[in-house]
Amino acid sequence: MKHAKGFTVWFTGLSGAGKSTLATLLKDSLRQLGLPVVLLDGDEVRKRLTKELGFTREDREENIRRIAYVATLLTNVGGVVIVAAISPYAHARADARREIGNFVEVFVKCPLHVCIERDPKGLYAKAQRKEISCFTGISDPYEEPQNPEILVETNTEQPQDSLQKILRQLEELELLKPFTEV
Amino acid sequence: MKHAKGFTVWFTGLSGAGKSTLATLLKDSLRQLGLPVVLLDGDEVRKRLTKELGFTREDREENIRRIAYVATLLTNVGGVVIVAAISPYAHARADARREIGNFVEVFVKCPLHVCIERDPKGLYAKAQRKEISCFTGISDPYEEPQNPEILVETNTEQPQDSLQKILRQLEELELLKPFTEV
Repeated sequence: MKHAKGFTVWFTGLSGAGKSTLATLLKDSLRQLGLPVVLLDGDEVRKRLTKELGFTREDREENIRRIAYVATLLTNVGGVVIVAAISPYAHARADARREIGNFVEVFVKCPLHVCIERDPKGLYAKAQRKEISCFTGISDPYEEPQNPEILVETNTEQPQDSLQKILRQLEELELLKPFTEV
Repeated sequence: MKHAKGFTVWFTGLSGAGKSTLATLLKDSLRQLGLPVVLLDGDEVRKRLTKELGFTREDREENIRRIAYVATLLTNVGGVVIVAAISPYAHARADARREIGNFVEVFVKCPLHVCIERDPKGLYAKAQRKEISCFTGISDPYEEPQNPEILVETNTEQPQDSLQKILRQLEELELLKPFTEV
């Protein structure tokens, strides 16, 4: 007897692109299928695992490494992990992919000016007033994924459209199969 | 369809009491049963999640809170989690128990003088020379569990005896049942 390995769906994108919204919709959908889902949201993780870390490049990388470590453990015991974190650096995402193994990258694409207009947490305004330093898109780079498994464009798609796109792609990757067949 | 909840086996005891040894034996046994086991060893966790933390009371508590958070996530997706950490404070263990839910406390009991004789990592010697401060048993308290689910006494038992005791108790608690019946 061998338990099934799980997988991690990793949402990356600018602040305000819609990662948490989509991650939550996906969590609810997969939970309804009876899957052992866990959502690691960047903000929650910062409170629980990395509250001493700031937003310098080094601290952001350590933050992502910790999320990747926890996602690896969860994936290895058969969990379906959803990560929502800006994760701006390509090599940090590549390291996460390597460590986790069953890794699905979802690029939540949205033009910077739209994210700035949305600014749900008022962070862009703060960053522009220089009250926050190293803010992704303003004073720190966002390195776009070149080959994500899934691309959603929240500037032109409704959340439900993006969700359906993600679910279809997970099915196509045969990731929902071992679970729905149980 | 609903996935099964897992459980956490939490080893607490002095440094040198034998927590890691027993945790590793248990991990191997449960893995052979095909269970989705993960071992969170204090030393490994410190490297991956809490490397900035020291050994003051506050830092030890934050260390335990992080382990408890990760163990909770793992337990909730159906994992079988084994924690090996000194976890000297009763209230921190009580908090972990509350958060995790399916929680089995194993008190790895061994007289301090025996642990000091063993001193596998040379830490007691360092603590006695005051090169380490706040060392459990020397310069920081260890609060013994009053009602652990399992008590093993590594001063008088062989590791295999303690392991069998733990396995029998897990069976008695019907924790191995949902897995072995699958």
